[in-house]
Amino acid sequence: MHKNSVAVLGASGYVGRELLEILARHPNVTIEFTSSQSEREINGHRALPLEEAQKHLGDVELVLSCLPHGVSRPAVEEARRAGARAVDLSADLRLSPAAVYGLTEVFRPRVPEAAIVANPGCYPTAALLALLPFAKAGLLDTSRPVVIDAASGVSGAGRSPKRELLFAEVAEDFRAYSVGNEHRHLPEITEHLKPFAGEVDLVFTPHLLPVKRGILATLHLPLKQVLDRSAAEELLLETYRGEPFIRVVRNGIPSLKDVVYRNLAALGVAPVKHVARPMLTVISAIDNLVKGAAGQAVQNMNLMLGLEETEGLRC
Amino acid sequence: MHKNSVAVLGASGYVGRELLEILARHPNVTIEFTSSQSEREINGHRALPLEEAQKHLGDVELVLSCLPHGVSRPAVEEARRAGARAVDLSADLRLSPAAVYGLTEVFRPRVPEAAIVANPGCYPTAALLALLPFAKAGLLDTSRPVVIDAASGVSGAGRSPKRELLFAEVAEDFRAYSVGNEHRHLPEITEHLKPFAGEVDLVFTPHLLPVKRGILATLHLPLKQVLDRSAAEELLLETYRGEPFIRVVRNGIPSLKDVVYRNLAALGVAPVKHVARPMLTVISAIDNLVKGAAGQAVQNMNLMLGLEETEGLRC
Amino acid sequence: MHKNSVAVLGASGYVGRELLEILARHPNVTIEFTSSQSEREINGHRALPLEEAQKHLGDVELVLSCLPHGVSRPAVEEARRAGARAVDLSADLRLSPAAVYGLTEVFRPRVPEAAIVANPGCYPTAALLALLPFAKAGLLDTSRPVVIDAASGVSGAGRSPKRELLFAEVAEDFRAYSVGNEHRHLPEITEHLKPFAGEVDLVFTPHLLPVKRGILATLHLPLKQVLDRSAAEELLLETYRGEPFIRVVRNGIPSLKDVVYRNLAALGVAPVKHVARPMLTVISAIDNLVKGAAGQAVQNMNLMLGLEETEGLRC
Amino acid sequence: MHKNSVAVLGASGYVGRELLEILARHPNVTIEFTSSQSEREINGHRALPLEEAQKHLGDVELVLSCLPHGVSRPAVEEARRAGARAVDLSADLRLSPAAVYGLTEVFRPRVPEAAIVANPGCYPTAALLALLPFAKAGLLDTSRPVVIDAASGVSGAGRSPKRELLFAEVAEDFRAYSVGNEHRHLPEITEHLKPFAGEVDLVFTPHLLPVKRGILATLHLPLKQVLDRSAAEELLLETYRGEPFIRVVRNGIPSLKDVVYRNLAALGVAPVKHVARPMLTVISAIDNLVKGAAGQAVQNMNLMLGLEETEGLRC
Repeated sequence: MHKNSVAVLGASGYVGRELLEILARHPNVTIEFTSSQSEREINGHRALPLEEAQKHLGDVELVLSCLPHGVSRPAVEEARRAGARAVDLSADLRLSPAAVYGLTEVFRPRVPEAAIVANPGCYPTAALLALLPFAKAGLLDTSRPVVIDAASGVSGAGRSPKRELLFAEVAEDFRAYSVGNEHRHLPEITEHLKPFAGEVDLVFTPHLLPVKRGILATLHLPLKQVLDRSAAEELLLETYRGEPFIRVVRNGIPSLKDVVYRNLAALGVAPVKHVARPMLTVISAIDNLVKGAAGQAVQNMNLMLGLEETEGLRC
Repeated sequence: MHKNSVAVLGASGYVGRELLEILARHPNVTIEFTSSQSEREINGHRALPLEEAQKHLGDVELVLSCLPHGVSRPAVEEARRAGARAVDLSADLRLSPAAVYGLTEVFRPRVPEAAIVANPGCYPTAALLALLPFAKAGLLDTSRPVVIDAASGVSGAGRSPKRELLFAEVAEDFRAYSVGNEHRHLPEITEHLKPFAGEVDLVFTPHLLPVKRGILATLHLPLKQVLDRSAAEELLLETYRGEPFIRVVRNGIPSLKDVVYRNLAALGVAPVKHVARPMLTVISAIDNLVKGAAGQAVQNMNLMLGLEETEGLRC
Repeated sequence: MHKNSVAVLGASGYVGRELLEILARHPNVTIEFTSSQSEREINGHRALPLEEAQKHLGDVELVLSCLPHGVSRPAVEEARRAGARAVDLSADLRLSPAAVYGLTEVFRPRVPEAAIVANPGCYPTAALLALLPFAKAGLLDTSRPVVIDAASGVSGAGRSPKRELLFAEVAEDFRAYSVGNEHRHLPEITEHLKPFAGEVDLVFTPHLLPVKRGILATLHLPLKQVLDRSAAEELLLETYRGEPFIRVVRNGIPSLKDVVYRNLAALGVAPVKHVARPMLTVISAIDNLVKGAAGQAVQNMNLMLGLEETEGLRC
Repeated sequence: MHKNSVAVLGASGYVGRELLEILARHPNVTIEFTSSQSEREINGHRALPLEEAQKHLGDVELVLSCLPHGVSRPAVEEARRAGARAVDLSADLRLSPAAVYGLTEVFRPRVPEAAIVANPGCYPTAALLALLPFAKAGLLDTSRPVVIDAASGVSGAGRSPKRELLFAEVAEDFRAYSVGNEHRHLPEITEHLKPFAGEVDLVFTPHLLPVKRGILATLHLPLKQVLDRSAAEELLLETYRGEPFIRVVRNGIPSLKDVVYRNLAALGVAPVKHVARPMLTVISAIDNLVKGAAGQAVQNMNLMLGLEETEGLRC
């Protein structure tokens, strides 16, 4: 059987390793090489320094880049020059017309032919999958802000040693960061919401959870009209009908344990009682390393290579 | 030295035990007896069945009740009949004119003479200490809702064995509950905000954190006018000047580790950027078992007994 | 394609659910039904009360029982009478000649034809895989005791609500239990060691770890002669050559994260310095729910059904 | 009231901060200054660079050094030359005749007059407090090895950022390290056992626990004669009669939660059944930052300054 050849750049972080795990079990791809600045072998795969790896980008059909922001874009552009297509897991191209934004369930038609797919960030994946159905249906009341309080496991902060990420600092703690709309990924949410809802005020506050992996986003949506629970669930079910990697929880609220180690976004809703104007709370849960990064990248890779979108993924 | 005699009812739960720990180190009180349905001795103190304990309520100056909701009120009333004063840590009397609401920093003048103090709930303590300074200053824009996303450690759910509270269920998980303004303590927040701000729409969503203790509340306040960070901090500092158990974090955001094992509420603020109408995010952190329960109860007890408010407490 | 029909009894605990997860992805089996006393549907599978389920045991080729100790044996015997073969995950038959002891890597030749396989306990799996290579090679000095200190994640204690297993009790704690050779699974280790080493004194002390899953056993083996690290590793490598589910870590020590969510036992060794008589420390790590229970059961089931031993399993 | 003046060197690590917390509540001492290479203020105390701090050592009565191994000894010697006494929390002087070994309950008579006290390591504190009563009583069978498997919370590994100590690496993991008697603190145990038991073979294997603080040591002692549980408990009770910081748990086994945040060692025993020659398992639990470091240092400091040994400490 023909196997597609791929390379993974920046493979030694948490996302890179998760990607290698998925690809190693994938029946249709071969990992030709990986890159890492610090290691020469990762999970049994050859790891080259980036400078060296860049000389071989033309040897593979598709490059998946988990390089840091700022470093990734030039590498992806180099891959293109060498004739390879690319999935960029960094934030470098997520707002760029040079790439297709790879929120697969939303932009699927554009992915197969894309030269470059910009894989969405983990917070934006969780937020947009919850927001877009209501935005597309014209239900968002854009005169009022959407409030999003989201919490991420520590793997989302990367694998570089930092004191604030030590076990003895994080365990038994919980904290907000980038409070006051200071998070760098806020524009990614705003921009990809715009085509469907126009300008929307967002109040986005991320928090650091004492767990290894997972994102739970609690979104409070101002609506133009009252939606009861079943109508809101129906809208989500209709929007995501047939989607293998999205689960709408009926009469319930998803939590991290429903999604970790799976390429899955789980959504649940509850109308807000006792408030003067209609609001709906939506809970969205993903594994930041899977549906929020490596798993979604493989969804996009599968489509780009003409494979079944679900190949190699578990939900 | 004269020591005041007290009794602790319902002493075998997490709050009861925390209270016994604090009282055992308190230089001015003697624990005469405790009550428990399942144990006859707790932390070295005699524990009577409630029915038995109720016969002796007149033997002590002050009764602290950690009994379950519904059971506590009759016991507290019995204590009154027997001539003892009471601090009720249950929710039974928090909305009742029969008790003084013991959010000490706000209602201090009424506490010393109170026959019964209704000790605030843990979520309301965290929320109200953050909200009231802005409400009192007339800054809350009550035409828009206040959104509160709060997260609590597992001890807040009590010590009765329930599957959903098992370690193997909670570890590495994070979940919202009572979503859609269904939490039973929401009226406690609304009612005690009302004298200062009138009717305010709240959207309150609690979450369960995989930590033993601590509450972090993230509050998004709609304001009538823009407040920059330093003005908002100044307002908090001014409101809580001289308060030993409240810390305003300047240019920072408090987290659980700043407050656990302390009788302390820590507050931090950040104005929300990029939104059309003024909003301020306030972060409020407490230990649910201390400032959110047993510690605050001892603050109130100290005032009722004419002792130094800080006696026996650490911050 | 023909699929083998199986039933899972006692499916609502942690082991039962893990087994359902594995079997649901298994390409060659169909789960006909499951049993549970409390639930009528588990992970999308029909769950019958045990009494009802027992009427249908003859409808399947193989029954996997995760029933509690004492309840499992009669159900397995009923399955035999109805013509089904069985893998018993309880401890009921692990010392019985009526069943083949399913430590697959050791007793593989006897498994395919077995009517009943008694699936090993999690602690015995971790211990025996570490001990047997040295016992078989005649290297154990049986005049001195083998000391085994082992630690298990909380899922090993089951899913029934018990106070001592609450998150608020277990988090940040670590404790020994059944100290002094009181653990009920000690004879399982002793008996299955006996054919290879004769009577051996064991000192086995289990501990409860604040993690969801995983067992790490630290075994101190008195040896008849000095073995340096590389010789000890060589012996393990030789014993387990070609085994897909055993990994010998060279020049290193395995930890839980090497094995969780995998059907894998990882082994590492270090000779003990500065002692008068030869000793070797062996570290053995497994996931208690996978290689220590459901995964090993599927290994055995695969062999009994004439399938590839690795089918449906990941390592 | 006269307050004794002290300085804390190396105050920015976990032990240093714990020490500052204790000293800040201590009624009889004043922290004149602290040292840190990275910070100029710690917990409200002035922090000088070490070079600067060393010029002022003569200004205080007693110096407590939490400096790293190798750096501490010269600083302590400098303190001596400047006329101050010292408690050295590093390992530098624990085997040196130039200092009194500060395992307070054992060497108390020598502490008050000591110029320098070498504060014991955390693992040695847990191990020696369990071993010495049996060694002193002549009960240890020194022809057989003592096996000690111990597990420590992550704060024991220090506050410097290292990848292996990141939350995402440590959570849900458990691992052994320095396996094969490679741990650098093994001689500290051996040497201080020698005066009471002569040469004893120890097999000491430390493990890293996913908790913030606490050490649990499981010790297997070969005895010259059978001791039943109550006789073993009696021996411990007798040895430690009147000791405020040691608790013998009767008919039970201590765990971390009995000791964390307390200056307390808790001990429990169980005779080992089903073995040919007498063995006793002893479980010893301490908080590595308190009784295993800062708390014990304050015990020693109190004695050196002529204060009550318990002053400022909680158990």
